[in-house]
Amino acid sequence: MLFFTQCFGAVLDLIHLRFQHYKAKRVFSAAGQLVCVVNPTHSLKYVSNRHAVGQTSTEQGSLHSHHPLETVHDPQLIPCICPLFSCQWEGHVEVVVSHLRQTHRINILHGAEIVFLATDMHLPAPTDWIIMHSCLGHHFLLVLRKLEKYEGHPQFFATMMLIGTPTQADNFTYRLELNRNQRRLKWEATPRSVLECVDSVISDGDCLVLNTSLAQLFSDNGSLAIGIAITASKVHAAEAEM
Amino acid sequence: MLFFTQCFGAVLDLIHLRFQHYKAKRVFSAAGQLVCVVNPTHSLKYVSNRHAVGQTSTEQGSLHSHHPLETVHDPQLIPCICPLFSCQWEGHVEVVVSHLRQTHRINILHGAEIVFLATDMHLPAPTDWIIMHSCLGHHFLLVLRKLEKYEGHPQFFATMMLIGTPTQADNFTYRLELNRNQRRLKWEATPRSVLECVDSVISDGDCLVLNTSLAQLFSDNGSLAIGIAITASKVHAAEAEM
Repeated sequence: MLFFTQCFGAVLDLIHLRFQHYKAKRVFSAAGQLVCVVNPTHSLKYVSNRHAVGQTSTEQGSLHSHHPLETVHDPQLIPCICPLFSCQWEGHVEVVVSHLRQTHRINILHGAEIVFLATDMHLPAPTDWIIMHSCLGHHFLLVLRKLEKYEGHPQFFATMMLIGTPTQADNFTYRLELNRNQRRLKWEATPRSVLECVDSVISDGDCLVLNTSLAQLFSDNGSLAIGIAITASKVHAAEAEM
Repeated sequence: MLFFTQCFGAVLDLIHLRFQHYKAKRVFSAAGQLVCVVNPTHSLKYVSNRHAVGQTSTEQGSLHSHHPLETVHDPQLIPCICPLFSCQWEGHVEVVVSHLRQTHRINILHGAEIVFLATDMHLPAPTDWIIMHSCLGHHFLLVLRKLEKYEGHPQFFATMMLIGTPTQADNFTYRLELNRNQRRLKWEATPRSVLECVDSVISDGDCLVLNTSLAQLFSDNGSLAIGIAITASKVHAAEAEM
């Protein structure tokens, strides 16, 4: 009899746990968006004379349509350097994701819309906040960089890079959104390819740029929340098929 | 007989002109938005030590709720200085609009959504591009300023000011939008009051800020088109009533 009572108790516990799990899941869904806390990466000395393999970006950079290295038949075999400025690694595009995960311990998030919460915004430049974002069948790299382009005046630069070729990147649009203190700032653009080098995208200023004062207005307790959304830009996809 | 023939000809001409006018009007409506070409104003020497009468803005500037000068019963009688940095005029808020029209020849545009087309973006800093915008029963001042906060690195700052008190300004939201070359940048905020001084809003960086490279990406033949929309922010209006 005791055995049956215990079994019945265990079943009740299981039902209770299942209900709690269902409730938790519902709360998570109600929250709507996945928030990812991103700590700054340890930044080594800035290597300014490093060049991307292949095309470097121009002022009208993302108006590119054909990358010279795309003559390689399999885009995954295109040579590529590590997009982080502190790293001298070189390899093929197909292994960049595993290099970033294993060597730099960069997390991968899944879902078309996420919130990137960068902590410790007060840290001195240069500092990077980085995550990978997996959606629509590709990996994207979000880089937020604090940099002193003009000495004594640090700025924040945020950009989204596709881990793939420029032609593949042309099929997407990304949006970065800041929203706080009755202010909203939105940046929408076509992602750049990691083959183009993050450093040159940032030095060209072809990304979301924030002065320190604006970054403070959008921050809460030293953390900056950036809403990220990626969509397939159908017009470009249709053009690519023509 | 000749007289009647001439009269009939004149009537036909009038009908033709009327039809042409109707066609022109229809084309204008089809275009959807009013585009206003704004030439730069002649800028005198920048007077950096000028202060606004009353409250100067703080870092969290628009979180103000009560302007000390709003203790004056009629908001139109609050003293105010000219919001243009090259002018030392002082007067009441009620006569700022006529001062800006008569002395600085600044145009007034009507309608909730307009396109501000600033020409000659290459001109050296400091340069202002200014229009007044009349909608929702108020006058707003759009100021685009090219300024070298950091020597040798000009930036563009765009903000919308209400010609009225900060409490009146809290009832509105303005949006500035740039859209070109597969890039889009949107800034939304509560307008600041002209009593707060344009100079301090810009020096705080609490506005749309563009580096030269980004301004070039959004420009077409040296002209920058900024879409402007103003809406009544019902939440604030409801809060003000509480």
